Amino acid sequence: MRTGTLHFDGKDYLDGHASDPVAMGWMQGSPPPPERQVLFDSDRSLAFPQSRWTLSHMREMVATARVARGHQAVSGLGALNTGVSDAIHTLQFKDMQGQTRLWADTLHDTYTDSIVVLHKGQCVYERYLGAGQPDLPHACFSITKSYSATLAACLVHEGVLDESRRIPHYLPEMANTAYADATLRNVLDMQVGVAYSELYSDPKAQIWDHARAGGFRTRPHDYAGAKNFYEFLLTLQKEGEHNQAFAYKTVNTDLLCWIMKRVTGQGLAEMLSERIWSRIGCENDAYISVDSIGVPFGGGGLSATVRDMARFGELMRCGGAHQGQQLIPQAVVADINRGSDPAKFAKAGYTLIPGYSYRNMWWVTHNAHDAYEGRGIHGQRLYIAPKADLVVARFASHPIAASAANDPITVPGLLALGELLHGA
Amino acid sequence: MRTGTLHFDGKDYLDGHASDPVAMGWMQGSPPPPERQVLFDSDRSLAFPQSRWTLSHMREMVATARVARGHQAVSGLGALNTGVSDAIHTLQFKDMQGQTRLWADTLHDTYTDSIVVLHKGQCVYERYLGAGQPDLPHACFSITKSYSATLAACLVHEGVLDESRRIPHYLPEMANTAYADATLRNVLDMQVGVAYSELYSDPKAQIWDHARAGGFRTRPHDYAGAKNFYEFLLTLQKEGEHNQAFAYKTVNTDLLCWIMKRVTGQGLAEMLSERIWSRIGCENDAYISVDSIGVPFGGGGLSATVRDMARFGELMRCGGAHQGQQLIPQAVVADINRGSDPAKFAKAGYTLIPGYSYRNMWWVTHNAHDAYEGRGIHGQRLYIAPKADLVVARFASHPIAASAANDPITVPGLLALGELLHGA
Repeated sequence: MRTGTLHFDGKDYLDGHASDPVAMGWMQGSPPPPERQVLFDSDRSLAFPQSRWTLSHMREMVATARVARGHQAVSGLGALNTGVSDAIHTLQFKDMQGQTRLWADTLHDTYTDSIVVLHKGQCVYERYLGAGQPDLPHACFSITKSYSATLAACLVHEGVLDESRRIPHYLPEMANTAYADATLRNVLDMQVGVAYSELYSDPKAQIWDHARAGGFRTRPHDYAGAKNFYEFLLTLQKEGEHNQAFAYKTVNTDLLCWIMKRVTGQGLAEMLSERIWSRIGCENDAYISVDSIGVPFGGGGLSATVRDMARFGELMRCGGAHQGQQLIPQAVVADINRGSDPAKFAKAGYTLIPGYSYRNMWWVTHNAHDAYEGRGIHGQRLYIAPKADLVVARFASHPIAASAANDPITVPGLLALGELLHGA
Repeated sequence: MRTGTLHFDGKDYLDGHASDPVAMGWMQGSPPPPERQVLFDSDRSLAFPQSRWTLSHMREMVATARVARGHQAVSGLGALNTGVSDAIHTLQFKDMQGQTRLWADTLHDTYTDSIVVLHKGQCVYERYLGAGQPDLPHACFSITKSYSATLAACLVHEGVLDESRRIPHYLPEMANTAYADATLRNVLDMQVGVAYSELYSDPKAQIWDHARAGGFRTRPHDYAGAKNFYEFLLTLQKEGEHNQAFAYKTVNTDLLCWIMKRVTGQGLAEMLSERIWSRIGCENDAYISVDSIGVPFGGGGLSATVRDMARFGELMRCGGAHQGQQLIPQAVVADINRGSDPAKFAKAGYTLIPGYSYRNMWWVTHNAHDAYEGRGIHGQRLYIAPKADLVVARFASHPIAASAANDPITVPGLLALGELLHGA
């Protein structure tokens, strides 16, 4: 089985073992040899296989804001039960193609960098591979969205935001864009008709213009595009209708964060710190990339440790309460867990995950364990399965920026894990 | 006295009150109005008066590496004695021109952002102004050098480095540079003959090439200069002789850090964390700016909170011991405190501070309180006065990048403070 190569879509990639970033020696040496330097200004920093290093070192590449843990005590995750941990490591399950997989092998097959499994709030499994380390923040990418929109949903619950309002109510300057007649609820559930391609394999996709606007990608010297996120958002034009179908577009999250900032005066980094990071016993500061005017990349810029991401999952699993404090209203968590309309989700054509819905920027599985999840494009995952008392936080650096490369193993694997623990 | 203007060298600058960065509204709003944006890519980010904001927000501008505090307990600085604090705040002293100054006023006169005074290890004075906040790291600039070289002196003490060796012994690639026949001791005491101007007011000074090489300043699109610190160091040519005179050149520190990395395999951020930050009860992670290949700016890139900088000062005051642990050899601290040859220092022409010397990248006053200090170019100061049981950590954002603008107040002020506390 160990060929050293992953075949996908007609291309070959180094597999999880062969692409180990420590073994490959990225950025080792003084100076590192030229062929082992990961240069942000070469724009190849996020390309595979150096991405296996980069995703654990974002702040060394781009400007960031701190998400402070404050001076709270760390909340323990319990002592590891080696019996349960071993049972997970040796778990066998069938992937979507019907092939039997050993859990331990799938860590490499999914290019996992770090993983923490909590059962009833206790850590039952924890592994670090590649560049992963317990205290080293890893890029969350789109799991960032679940953090951002959970905060927004809190503001809706508090009456600070009104989900029925159209976007120009909060941001009059958006009146001539795709968002003129979109509601805040459309944005929260990503049911907006906007011309914006998220196809990572297409160099002309707007996601790259978005990234260049935010300073997340380098710019050519004659660059004349948007210089920050807000300027980019102002360029977005309508395509299709709102409120008809789920359409995954990262810009929705950045727009959401702009509204939150405009209304509360508080930026995402401060709000995340005040409402979440400093309240749930996080072990480490997180950080988030910022654009040229200091605006955090709410759609994908967060880096956190896997243990701290698991703590957020556990907060959600416990209905928003941590040690007796209701940090996120129970109604907000229940609303996310309930999901939205699977028929609207189905229109988006995610054939590997039929029956899902999308609510407040969480992916809702509607599976046997009533799970919902945050997803990052390189296999990052925050999986919360209330009926299995399960939280899984996983960071990965998969070469394929598409869930289709990951779901055939990950979706059945998480369900099998839930079944294993459900009886425990 | 309050005119709103500081006159210096024939120019007018907003004074400490009028340039308050919070009142001026830098980076406030969503988006901030154009005239209140501090854009790194405009290259004006470090210009006054926006520098009063920037020096507290470096990580939001440039790539950085973390200097981790780890998971140690915070070491207390004691409860503030308001009697002593008030006595300091109302202290009067004569500046170098013979003008009587009130300590409280000099906070504004020196553009102070934050200050902590420890007496016998207890905090007796603490103030935050401008952008300063207790948990917000501030740019140390050249105080970074004192951290870097103290670590290097530890390595010399441990026999890992030999101060009598010439630089090419450690870095053969430096054989064709100014450093071919310079010793490590020459570098540690900045007695190197090298063509390198540190005159900040001259846009052609090599300090700017150095900054561009390190990514600390933006580069023109047709930039063809050094792409990282190491490449820049390889260009340095000889001017004058080694071992003859103190000559303050930031490149010496970056060269020193290169040697430390080459010999130990450990970069400055990790070494600072392992040997200092995680050992003395620091409250916050620090961070340090890095170049395009991840090399920390050992000559000036550190940002830390004022309380954590005071903790380092207290470690030095206590002969390198913290809570019974000898973290820095007593001999290293004593050697720094003893200083080097004032005759060599005198040749450098610092007329406001006669009698000083420079040792292991600390400025040694040889004053009545046997004080030595780290100095940053905008008024940052870490002052350790063993005979007055005194440590002063101060961050500032003075418009004039030259100690001559600051010393006439600061030098007599610190001496008067020592006298006040010496009797306490």
